[in-house]
Amino acid sequence: MEKIVIKPRIIPPKIELYIDKDLLSSTFLKEYISKGDGKVVIATNKSLEESLGRALSAFLKAPLLIIPNGESAKNKETKEMLEEELFKMGCDKKTTLIALGGGVVTDLVGFTASVFLRGVSLILIPTTLLAMVDAAIGGKTGINNSYGKNLIGSIYHPKAVFIDLTLLETLPQKQWLCGFAEVLKLGLIYDSSIFKIAKKDIHDPVLIKKAVKGKISVIEKDPFEKSLRKILNFGHTIAHGLEKVSNYELAHGLAVAIGCVIEAHLSMSLGFLSEEEFKEIEEFYNLFQVKIPSIYQREAFLKALSFDKKNRGGHFYFVLMDKIGKARKCKGFYSEIVPLEKLLPSLIFMEKKYG
Amino acid sequence: MEKIVIKPRIIPPKIELYIDKDLLSSTFLKEYISKGDGKVVIATNKSLEESLGRALSAFLKAPLLIIPNGESAKNKETKEMLEEELFKMGCDKKTTLIALGGGVVTDLVGFTASVFLRGVSLILIPTTLLAMVDAAIGGKTGINNSYGKNLIGSIYHPKAVFIDLTLLETLPQKQWLCGFAEVLKLGLIYDSSIFKIAKKDIHDPVLIKKAVKGKISVIEKDPFEKSLRKILNFGHTIAHGLEKVSNYELAHGLAVAIGCVIEAHLSMSLGFLSEEEFKEIEEFYNLFQVKIPSIYQREAFLKALSFDKKNRGGHFYFVLMDKIGKARKCKGFYSEIVPLEKLLPSLIFMEKKYG
Repeated sequence: MEKIVIKPRIIPPKIELYIDKDLLSSTFLKEYISKGDGKVVIATNKSLEESLGRALSAFLKAPLLIIPNGESAKNKETKEMLEEELFKMGCDKKTTLIALGGGVVTDLVGFTASVFLRGVSLILIPTTLLAMVDAAIGGKTGINNSYGKNLIGSIYHPKAVFIDLTLLETLPQKQWLCGFAEVLKLGLIYDSSIFKIAKKDIHDPVLIKKAVKGKISVIEKDPFEKSLRKILNFGHTIAHGLEKVSNYELAHGLAVAIGCVIEAHLSMSLGFLSEEEFKEIEEFYNLFQVKIPSIYQREAFLKALSFDKKNRGGHFYFVLMDKIGKARKCKGFYSEIVPLEKLLPSLIFMEKKYG
Repeated sequence: MEKIVIKPRIIPPKIELYIDKDLLSSTFLKEYISKGDGKVVIATNKSLEESLGRALSAFLKAPLLIIPNGESAKNKETKEMLEEELFKMGCDKKTTLIALGGGVVTDLVGFTASVFLRGVSLILIPTTLLAMVDAAIGGKTGINNSYGKNLIGSIYHPKAVFIDLTLLETLPQKQWLCGFAEVLKLGLIYDSSIFKIAKKDIHDPVLIKKAVKGKISVIEKDPFEKSLRKILNFGHTIAHGLEKVSNYELAHGLAVAIGCVIEAHLSMSLGFLSEEEFKEIEEFYNLFQVKIPSIYQREAFLKALSFDKKNRGGHFYFVLMDKIGKARKCKGFYSEIVPLEKLLPSLIFMEKKYG
């Protein structure tokens, strides 16, 4: 038998991330975009069309494609609509796709860019705090289907990400809170300074820079989610369960806020996190003013947990924390099994506090 | 403005390629497959189901998914059907997908593997000579749509490729010729020993190994098709035009055979290839016994050429050859513009010889 080992050379991805006020209307952005020699196409959603899309389209002299609003548009039909429009425009391999919007837009347009002609240039302009600190960082793209969220997708890195802090000034409070929950999450499990600064001023822009840098640092250390990157799932086991039982009426970020408190509680009740630090977290998180969905029932919630892709085989996997700024590592892993009887006290706490 | 440059670490792809007789029924294959701890699923097409699929499925104790036959099945509907079946089976990130078939199957299943849960392990078992020396090598996956072939897809490398030479013994003559055209193409533009050996014995198995190694060598030198890899398009400008005017009734490999002779003729008439070597090529290629489609008309053919993605803007791009085993490099590029009036004599030659 002949064995040949092929090691194709690859271009290591390099993403340029720019953070500033008024980036969207800056000559810097305009010059950056006009450097390329291919077509430039902007994709955004209906609700951003008038407020941002048309102005950017006129500013960059680039056509605008409009995606329907909401998570329900993050599907194959919308992706195929985008592809169809790109083909109609005669787009080729030199085309650059700009995704202007929240996580739904960046995930969907990113996935489209990754498969259109086997991949074209992608630029992300996240417009929500959540997309700035989470969806736009890390290269995950994807669409939902009837089996769940983000089940079809790719790992595909943008050429650049433009984070315009001015956009946060007009962001609705609820959307801001959703992003802030992910910022704080990084404070709990990776960079305690985020939590400390947030306690002084929740609107300090340095929080966004620290959250972005924190997530990048985690991803750079573990790009393939073998170990450390799992800590980014802190708060998410509970959150995914709550989202599911609410039929996704509960916003992801708000679910994460509850999830972080409950998983901190679990860390405390298992003896890892001090009671004092848990109290500090619990109190600070009151700013979210969030409730679990009225439809919540413990049985349905536990069933939802057991369908999570992280919990295959009837086990509940959790990321836990040792103290503020430090996720718990157990036998080399950042994710560990918690049996139902040890989870129950934290669920009872959740039902009492957020019910 | 704050600028952060992110350079995510990546796992360099490594593909193990095995070439031998009777690989499909070997304990080596069985042990290789059983090393993983996830589900294994085989996808093949209808025409291979009875002859190979069921036996492999029983041998590896892996479920079998059946794709409709033919190029027309290489579309989003078939890909979604595969995804649906994989979800129904409860496949997760540890799943390995085995593509058993020709280029249609390996391209389609490869693309599915690349986006299912953002990418699962892929093993290719090409069953045609064309897939062994071409489709299974290089990581290109894709599906067709109404705008053209392979327009949606990805670059995604399999973990392993198993080339079972025994499969060639029962391969229909026409399918064998289609693959042989790609083998010979590498002889014309990259490795003259392939052409020499083929002239002695067209069935010498060393030809397959040399063709595989030749293509790998080209791809490793230019993985991103910036320069050298373009030589793999030799014969393909003419071939794509012929396929298009025949409404894809003319098999790709046979179109490539004509394309190679005509692009060799063009290389000669432009003064690069010697008349002697052209004659040698022309005569040897008579073994293909192929004709241009009866529907062929020069006007329609030229129109088809100008729609090729390589020929945007009304120019005709060709890879040319200096001598047998050596593609022509012109101003640093392996692909150059040929004006219509210089192409015409070669078209007239084609119409006369293959009409």
